[in-house]
Amino acid sequence: MRYGVLGTGEVGRALAGRLVELGQEVTLGSRTRDNPVAAQWATAAAGRARAGTFAEAAAAGEVVVNAVGGPVALAALRTAGAEHLDGKVLVDVCNPLVFLDGEARLDPVESDSVGERIQRAFPHARVVKTLNTVNCRVMVDPGRVPGAHNVFVSGDDAGAKEQVTAMLGEFGWPAERVVDLGGIRSARSVEMYLGLWLTMFRRFGSPDFNIEVCRAG
Amino acid sequence: MRYGVLGTGEVGRALAGRLVELGQEVTLGSRTRDNPVAAQWATAAAGRARAGTFAEAAAAGEVVVNAVGGPVALAALRTAGAEHLDGKVLVDVCNPLVFLDGEARLDPVESDSVGERIQRAFPHARVVKTLNTVNCRVMVDPGRVPGAHNVFVSGDDAGAKEQVTAMLGEFGWPAERVVDLGGIRSARSVEMYLGLWLTMFRRFGSPDFNIEVCRAG
Repeated sequence: MRYGVLGTGEVGRALAGRLVELGQEVTLGSRTRDNPVAAQWATAAAGRARAGTFAEAAAAGEVVVNAVGGPVALAALRTAGAEHLDGKVLVDVCNPLVFLDGEARLDPVESDSVGERIQRAFPHARVVKTLNTVNCRVMVDPGRVPGAHNVFVSGDDAGAKEQVTAMLGEFGWPAERVVDLGGIRSARSVEMYLGLWLTMFRRFGSPDFNIEVCRAG
Repeated sequence: MRYGVLGTGEVGRALAGRLVELGQEVTLGSRTRDNPVAAQWATAAAGRARAGTFAEAAAAGEVVVNAVGGPVALAALRTAGAEHLDGKVLVDVCNPLVFLDGEARLDPVESDSVGERIQRAFPHARVVKTLNTVNCRVMVDPGRVPGAHNVFVSGDDAGAKEQVTAMLGEFGWPAERVVDLGGIRSARSVEMYLGLWLTMFRRFGSPDFNIEVCRAG
């Protein structure tokens, strides 16, 4: 499968690196063509890895992964171009994290989500929100954290969620640990969870944790 | 120990009933003295159980439990009277759930919480936010849900959190399953979790679930 991963930060590099390891073809997209981080990454990953612009990465991917920060996600995807997203599975892993007077805050929160905004802005993309509830190292290596902890998927397209569940399986998340929360509207509930995640991160002093959903019956 | 439980809804009755079972003296407080639900509860529970006004319940309790809904919590506590709360452990289990055009929404959200509002309004009460992340039946009977799932405590007073952790232990939550999130400001992160809780509740069709925090190392 060919993936276009948008964003050369820690999250984008972790996902792109893991996908290359798994034998996928990956184009890591950045705002500019001559992004040194992306170029270095592509050189290090070699073979199946390339660096390019957001548009080149999106065009190259059969699946596109949004791994830029929540506040710039829509701008990055507009730069990538709707024509390179239409009909494709668009995996959104970002969080609506902003800093206000040095304080971590969420925007949007509760009445909307970045996942929904992306789906509204690109109605022909098949948006699936997932993985934003864990640190990027846990995203691609769930075994870092003990226990049968869960990830979530939210999206309006059942086929896209199935495809993303398969990708998660390759990362090490068995299908029974992927909780389908329903339509893309449920993205707001996993984005809001960031508040609790951040509080636990500060308390624990490590991002190597996650939650397991325990159910009766 | 003498408890004053404010709120005669499902949550207040579950907590008050369990406390009576555990041998505590409980006054269940309602807006009015002649609340039939509270009177009936006190009759059924007998012995160590009484019904009264918010003020009578708060005055009677060495520990006061706020089990009214988030939107009316401050009003109920003002009716209870600051003089009956000062210096006491005030356990806040409510959620900021409101309905807007028939839709479940949170108010306040993210930049504030009911827990913090209560602590600001009653600076001499020792507010501890807890249990709002689980259904009231799970609150007092965690064994309903399998697994070593967790509850959280948030509060500025370490001694109050210890006392509440002991109460939680009597409910069936061993101390190692009580996650101390820090000061009362962290109440906003557990109140925001309601979004994910509600989404899972709708998906699962049952409130008998909870989350376990899995940590590396």
